[in-house]
Formats: sequence, structure tokens, C-alpha cells
Amino acid sequence: MEHTNIGKHISEKFDEELEGVRNAVLSMGGMVEQQLTDALKAIQTTDVELAEKILRKDSQVNDLELEIDSACTRIIAKRQPTASDLRLIVATLKTIADLERIGDEVKRLARVAQETFNSEQQHLLVNLENLGQLVVNMLRQALNAFARMDAEAALEVHRTDSSIDRQYEALLRQLMTYMMEDPRSIPKIMDVVFSARSLERIGDRCQNIAEYIIFNVHGKDVRHTSADSMEATIKNKR
Amino acid sequence: MEHTNIGKHISEKFDEELEGVRNAVLSMGGMVEQQLTDALKAIQTTDVELAEKILRKDSQVNDLELEIDSACTRIIAKRQPTASDLRLIVATLKTIADLERIGDEVKRLARVAQETFNSEQQHLLVNLENLGQLVVNMLRQALNAFARMDAEAALEVHRTDSSIDRQYEALLRQLMTYMMEDPRSIPKIMDVVFSARSLERIGDRCQNIAEYIIFNVHGKDVRHTSADSMEATIKNKR
Repeated sequence: MEHTNIGKHISEKFDEELEGVRNAVLSMGGMVEQQLTDALKAIQTTDVELAEKILRKDSQVNDLELEIDSACTRIIAKRQPTASDLRLIVATLKTIADLERIGDEVKRLARVAQETFNSEQQHLLVNLENLGQLVVNMLRQALNAFARMDAEAALEVHRTDSSIDRQYEALLRQLMTYMMEDPRSIPKIMDVVFSARSLERIGDRCQNIAEYIIFNVHGKDVRHTSADSMEATIKNKR
Repeated sequence: MEHTNIGKHISEKFDEELEGVRNAVLSMGGMVEQQLTDALKAIQTTDVELAEKILRKDSQVNDLELEIDSACTRIIAKRQPTASDLRLIVATLKTIADLERIGDEVKRLARVAQETFNSEQQHLLVNLENLGQLVVNMLRQALNAFARMDAEAALEVHRTDSSIDRQYEALLRQLMTYMMEDPRSIPKIMDVVFSARSLERIGDRCQNIAEYIIFNVHGKDVRHTSADSMEATIKNKR
């Protein structure tokens, strides 16, 4: 908690506003995480109704993004924040953009859950389960790191992405083998391929969120730098 | 030009800063557009050297994003902009994030240009050409709309996306047919599928940029609204 920028302003109202935005981001994150968990469940159980529910709920995620977005702009205009407060707001604006896009990927997953698969194709969906679990964990950890503004936890999240990429590559090779063995199933297998890719993209977006957290905590933009240099930033508190 | 927020500040220095940021966004956009054009050329001619050049140049795109990003944050901290100036800066921050991600998709395209295709597979790459041209045009128009802060032009850009989606879907069906006919080529065809998807994603990002322009000009967030309501926003200047 010592890393948060909250609780040091003369204006209590300003503190409340920042805390309000932070809570809204966590609500939005929690909603997206639940949507992702539900989408994976809907795929595994080919639960069309659950998929429908997910698709309907996406507009709530979008609404939250717009709300937080304008709350941030209002705070900038009214409070004219500088230094760490401004960094927090910029990091928030970027985080919600990524959360919203994660919501879009979840929608793609939900649409796949609405497709019909025969019993032979059904087992293909099982292949998504491991990758899906890794990605749900990554998202959860990214949100936890955001909640505590914990740069070290964010660095951990950032590192996770390479194992997700490896798992995705392996799954892709496996799915291509299925396609070669059973060409008639290609359209269905392509749905699974795109679902895997959506999961991989969600991992990329969690990595983005991790970078914004590190930027917010250390005031140094670590995007496009190596993991080593990112670690140096955090350890040396440069 | 009458729509730009520039040229009405008492502080000439502030005007210069805003103009500087605007020019930097256009430079970044121009660079990304050139990278995309080059990537499509590299794919059509399987020009490995050009692809290598594109991959090397991506770091310049990333550097520009970081520069513009911190210039925007500095302006917010120093000038404490409100209303339309603040909207312009927020729209800029979002636009450069999308431009940078377009750069990432271009990198994926360049990597495909580095693959080896036999003469039979080569013709698959030709299929990307139409979609690629549509997307290059869309990006160019999005950048032009940004340069002039022209909401009507942005709406046109926004509308283009549905024709790109249709073209993408048609291409995808065609590629799946190829896969079914020649399963051994599946890994190569998948490269083309992912390239097509990268192009389609670039179209989505141009659509985002169009939304930021409309937001900037009209002060109304049009994301997640229908094309009709977007049009109403622009025509009625609500």
C-alpha cells in the first residue's frame, strides 16, 4: 500500500476522487476477469446461454471505460495534477483502454462458445483450457499489482508472458497437426486457433498493464525495454 | 484547419508545444504508414532485406511514441490545459498508442515476408494485396483526418472498417478452402491467415483513431455507439 499515490493531499476531495477512480478500475478489472472466466467455462461446456450472457454484459465493461475515462479527464482539468498524481491518471487511462480490449477478446471467445462442435471436435476445446488458466491467472495478478501499485509484482506479471507465448505456440502446432489429419474440420479448428490467439493477445495486454504500473511507481517508461533493464529500474529504484 | 485547437492561446509557447506534438504524431503516423506499405511490398516480392529493414526501423516508431507520450504529460503538468486543449492531448495519447500497435502488426507482417514460400504457395500472398491496399488507404485517411482534425473525414474512415471486415472474411474463407485442398501447405497458409488478421486489426485501430478525432472535435465520446448516432453527433454538432 505504501506505493499508492493516495492519501497525501491537502484536499480530501482530491484523495476521494483518486480513490474513486482506482476503485472503478478495480471493478472494471474484476468484471473483465469474471467475463474471461465465464467465457472459458462456456467454451468447455459449450454453454450457449452463458455465452449470450457474456456478450450482453460487454456493454457494461464499455460503459465503465467511458465513465473512468471522463472521470480522469475531469480530474486533470479540475485538479491539475503533476508528478506522481498525473502519472497515476495517465497509467489509469491506458490501463482501462487495455481492459476494454481484453473485453473485446473475451467477446470473441464467447462467440466461439456459441458454435456447434461434434463430439470429435469437442476435445479440441479442451486444449484451450491450460492456456486459458494461465491467462486468467496473469490477468488476476496484473489487477492485484494495479490494486497495490506493486512494481515487483508487475514485473512478475511481465515475465509470465513468455510462458504464455510458448504454450500458445505449442497449441498452435498441435492444432495445425489436427488440421492436416482431418481437413474437413478446418473451419472448426480455425475457431479454436483464433480463440488461442485471443488468449495470447490478452496476455500481451496484461503485459502492457504491468508496464503502466512500473511507469507509475518509478516514473520511468519501461515500454520497449528488455526485462533486465526493467528489473534494474525496479531494483535500483532509478 | 478551422477545427484545430491551435492558434488561440495567449502563450505562444503553448501553441508551439501543441503544434510540436501534432507534428510529431504526423511524423510517427507517416513512418508507420511507410512501414506498412513496405511490409506489403516485402510480402509480395518476398524481399527478405526489406523485411529486415522494417523490423529494424520499428524501434524508431516505439521511440517516437515514448517521446510524444512524455511531451503530452509535460504539457499537462506545465500548462494545465482544460476543455478542448486537454481533449486534444488525451486524443493524442490514445492515437499514438494505436499507432504503436499498428507498428507491432506491421512487424508481424514483415516476419511473414521473411518466410520461404514455394512457387505454388507464392500466389497465396497475392490474396493479401487487395486487403492490404484497403488498409493502407484507411490508415492514410485516418492520418489526414487527424492532421486536419476533421470529424466528417473521421466518420468516413470509421465506415470503411466494415468493408475491410467483409474483405477479410472472404479472404479467410478462401484460405480455408486452400487448406482443405492442400493440407500439407497448412503451416504456410496459416502465415497468410495471420497476416490477413493483422491487416484486419490495423483497420480496427484506424477506426479507434477516427473515434478519438470525433471525440476531440465534438467533445463527445462516440466509442461504443452506432454509426448513426456518431453521424448525428457530427451533423448536429451536439
